[in-house]
Amino acid sequence: MFKRVKSIKELYDKYVIYLNQSILIEGWLKNRRCQKKMVFLDLNDGTSLDDLQIVYRIDDFNNIVNEIKNNLQIGISLQIKGYLVKSKTEEQKIEILAKEIIILGKNYSDYPIQTKKHSKAFLRQNAHLRLRTKLFGAIFRIRSTVYYAVNDFFRKEAFFNIATPIITTSDGEGAGELFKVTSFDLEKIPFDQNKKVDYKKDFFGQKTFLTVTGQLEAEAFATSLRKVYTFGPVFRAENSNTPRHISEFWMIEVEEAFCDLQKIINLAQKLLQQIIKYCLKNNIEDFLFLEKNGEFNLISRLEKIAFLEKIKQIDYKEAIKILINNQDLFENKPFFGSDLFNEHEKFLTEIYFQEPIFIINWPRNIKAFYMKDNSDHQTVAAMDLLVPKVGELIGGSQREEKLEVLINKMKEFNIAYEELEWYLDLRRFGSCIHSGFGVGFERLLIFLTGLDNVKDVIAFPRTPGNAFF
Amino acid sequence: MFKRVKSIKELYDKYVIYLNQSILIEGWLKNRRCQKKMVFLDLNDGTSLDDLQIVYRIDDFNNIVNEIKNNLQIGISLQIKGYLVKSKTEEQKIEILAKEIIILGKNYSDYPIQTKKHSKAFLRQNAHLRLRTKLFGAIFRIRSTVYYAVNDFFRKEAFFNIATPIITTSDGEGAGELFKVTSFDLEKIPFDQNKKVDYKKDFFGQKTFLTVTGQLEAEAFATSLRKVYTFGPVFRAENSNTPRHISEFWMIEVEEAFCDLQKIINLAQKLLQQIIKYCLKNNIEDFLFLEKNGEFNLISRLEKIAFLEKIKQIDYKEAIKILINNQDLFENKPFFGSDLFNEHEKFLTEIYFQEPIFIINWPRNIKAFYMKDNSDHQTVAAMDLLVPKVGELIGGSQREEKLEVLINKMKEFNIAYEELEWYLDLRRFGSCIHSGFGVGFERLLIFLTGLDNVKDVIAFPRTPGNAFF
Repeated sequence: MFKRVKSIKELYDKYVIYLNQSILIEGWLKNRRCQKKMVFLDLNDGTSLDDLQIVYRIDDFNNIVNEIKNNLQIGISLQIKGYLVKSKTEEQKIEILAKEIIILGKNYSDYPIQTKKHSKAFLRQNAHLRLRTKLFGAIFRIRSTVYYAVNDFFRKEAFFNIATPIITTSDGEGAGELFKVTSFDLEKIPFDQNKKVDYKKDFFGQKTFLTVTGQLEAEAFATSLRKVYTFGPVFRAENSNTPRHISEFWMIEVEEAFCDLQKIINLAQKLLQQIIKYCLKNNIEDFLFLEKNGEFNLISRLEKIAFLEKIKQIDYKEAIKILINNQDLFENKPFFGSDLFNEHEKFLTEIYFQEPIFIINWPRNIKAFYMKDNSDHQTVAAMDLLVPKVGELIGGSQREEKLEVLINKMKEFNIAYEELEWYLDLRRFGSCIHSGFGVGFERLLIFLTGLDNVKDVIAFPRTPGNAFF
Repeated sequence: MFKRVKSIKELYDKYVIYLNQSILIEGWLKNRRCQKKMVFLDLNDGTSLDDLQIVYRIDDFNNIVNEIKNNLQIGISLQIKGYLVKSKTEEQKIEILAKEIIILGKNYSDYPIQTKKHSKAFLRQNAHLRLRTKLFGAIFRIRSTVYYAVNDFFRKEAFFNIATPIITTSDGEGAGELFKVTSFDLEKIPFDQNKKVDYKKDFFGQKTFLTVTGQLEAEAFATSLRKVYTFGPVFRAENSNTPRHISEFWMIEVEEAFCDLQKIINLAQKLLQQIIKYCLKNNIEDFLFLEKNGEFNLISRLEKIAFLEKIKQIDYKEAIKILINNQDLFENKPFFGSDLFNEHEKFLTEIYFQEPIFIINWPRNIKAFYMKDNSDHQTVAAMDLLVPKVGELIGGSQREEKLEVLINKMKEFNIAYEELEWYLDLRRFGSCIHSGFGVGFERLLIFLTGLDNVKDVIAFPRTPGNAFF
């Protein structure tokens, strides 16, 4: 007799087919307002930004009114049976006139999440419950949409999704501190004759780490399947507690064979623009909520970028000149040959250019060994995309495809090339030019949502001193 | 003048628009056949199962014929400029009459992958190069399609993708050995006064592991966003070297609120059937190749399952009866209360029922603490889906939603419930019935491809003693 509705989102999307019918729906109580004769409940199940209004006349529930009234606390779960009607108010399209209210799950103590605004720090401590708030509902619905947009983009562009290993023996680019992975009982580490740890006795028979990048393996795929991307977690054991750093985060890594720097730059631009368009189209209510509660021009900022014809490119040399001309603004003084600090990145993209900008042709000494030397022998065919709110969002390069050049560079950069024979094989047998880039997923989400802290766009962040939940 | 074609797949898909035109295309040389006046090259770039035939008349290349002939070794990368024509033979639709052949990347030594059939063990040792073979090309193109099919299915079913942590302090279900994650220098582990490892000094300030499941965190999401799934790597430090085990594998975990066991069983069936249909439709050439080179009735086996109206369900009790009646067949003797071994699973699904089968209502003592007790107090509302080729493919259950029952069961099962206060909070505030299941992604791929070993459906498998590449 009561038609069960799959979710509140489903009800909003297809309310016309449920209108003036008896329906059954579940959710959590988010708010309640009592008038003399009427009670209004806001129900939500996390599928929709907008709560569903439940209305009941106190008279109709007379015999149980006190019991219900006392137990209808914020946070409990309910099943509602009622009649769906058009709402008379402007605030919502529809509402349910309740016939029956069933409490599925009560509260055993005071629910920590109240209707008042909680600080983000408090909510981080209650990461398992913050997911039930409007803000984090919006964030994680958007995160899911962006995840899908990424996969959909690459499918349509004929890239293959690949999985690269999480447990690894190589330290990747030599960039970033590594977490160690072991099966040893740490109280009984076995040592060899030379009083070194006897890794032969460990699970994998050698020293292993959590990966910082899947790029080298992605290159093996690209030189086999041509166009590939990874989408998975990577790790940094850096002891820095900033709004831009977490120890475990997700990364998209792209690698394409027979492809030079300019082509990969075009791909990066297209990826970014498609993601913006897709998620604005699919989650506009969530973005409007974020805009109202955070960055006031979020949507127009994103839309402007989505329709840029070609994102500007400047040489690293030029960028450094601009920074040196404005050096009074910076704590870290820029000079030719230095890496860019976040303050430099933000100045360039937010203040100087006021739009996203690719910086290309970086000094070879501050970039990874696998990047392709330019003919000036001083710079490499690398690119960083800087965007407002974040600074560096995407980093990539053309890779060195020449065997001898790569070996020499590995020697010069002190890379243990004996351990990377398999990687050299990619140049030893049918080498080809190829290029790729990486996108930090949480930084992308900061850019898209306008939030200030990567810890708020991943559900259970890992940071120094914190692996809770 | 020569129109560049994006990939060999692109050329096959849209050959009509390139026909009788001058095109430019890249790839790797997979085979060559010389006749008196003609040379035939098989070119591929991994995007397509079928090689592209390049034809050149020796006369046209007379001045450089010897140089080219000597250097055209299997494995090198080439750029071909030529004229696309319909092929006169039946074997291929199209071929290129070469005007120019440019060697992009030669071989520096003998290419390990030759046209003869290599053993899978040899190819595993050359995991970075096996990706270039027809077999592994097919496997990893299918893997990518299945990855997409999973995400597409859940998007259409209105599930949110979520990321649960890889580094964790909890040992999940108490199931499976765990890898430890640490920043300690293993040669200088700090000890406290009691001669215990002083984890307060480690990166996260406590003992941390690689996750075996994201389920508990997924439950936090499901009781917030209603319908969620994870898709990422999980880990087992078990010292078992079988064709069904790897130490690092990908898992899909699904969790839905306001949902009981039967509903989650229906969802699991729908997921499996949609995946089969999607990948047979999108990768039929790859499946035909696998069928020709492996399981002879692969496609019809899959199709039959894809169109089953309802996958049969039997009680664990009934399954055990069947097994006891056939106990002479088994190394491990089945008895009521025992878990099923792979030989039991395969007997039930491959021989006895000869189709997939859900086994439901398992003895509570052999299942995880969070599974919902049935009213008989002996069994739990759990399901395993057994399928031919694999045995257990999917495992799931309704979760215990009652606070007191769950706490008592955690005590009974010796689960440190003090460390899982946050998990109990999900029952403390607005609890609701909810259910979920997990699918091992590599097992799913074994089921779909008909291969025998999970090490062949993940690119760089991690197993005891092996974390190469």
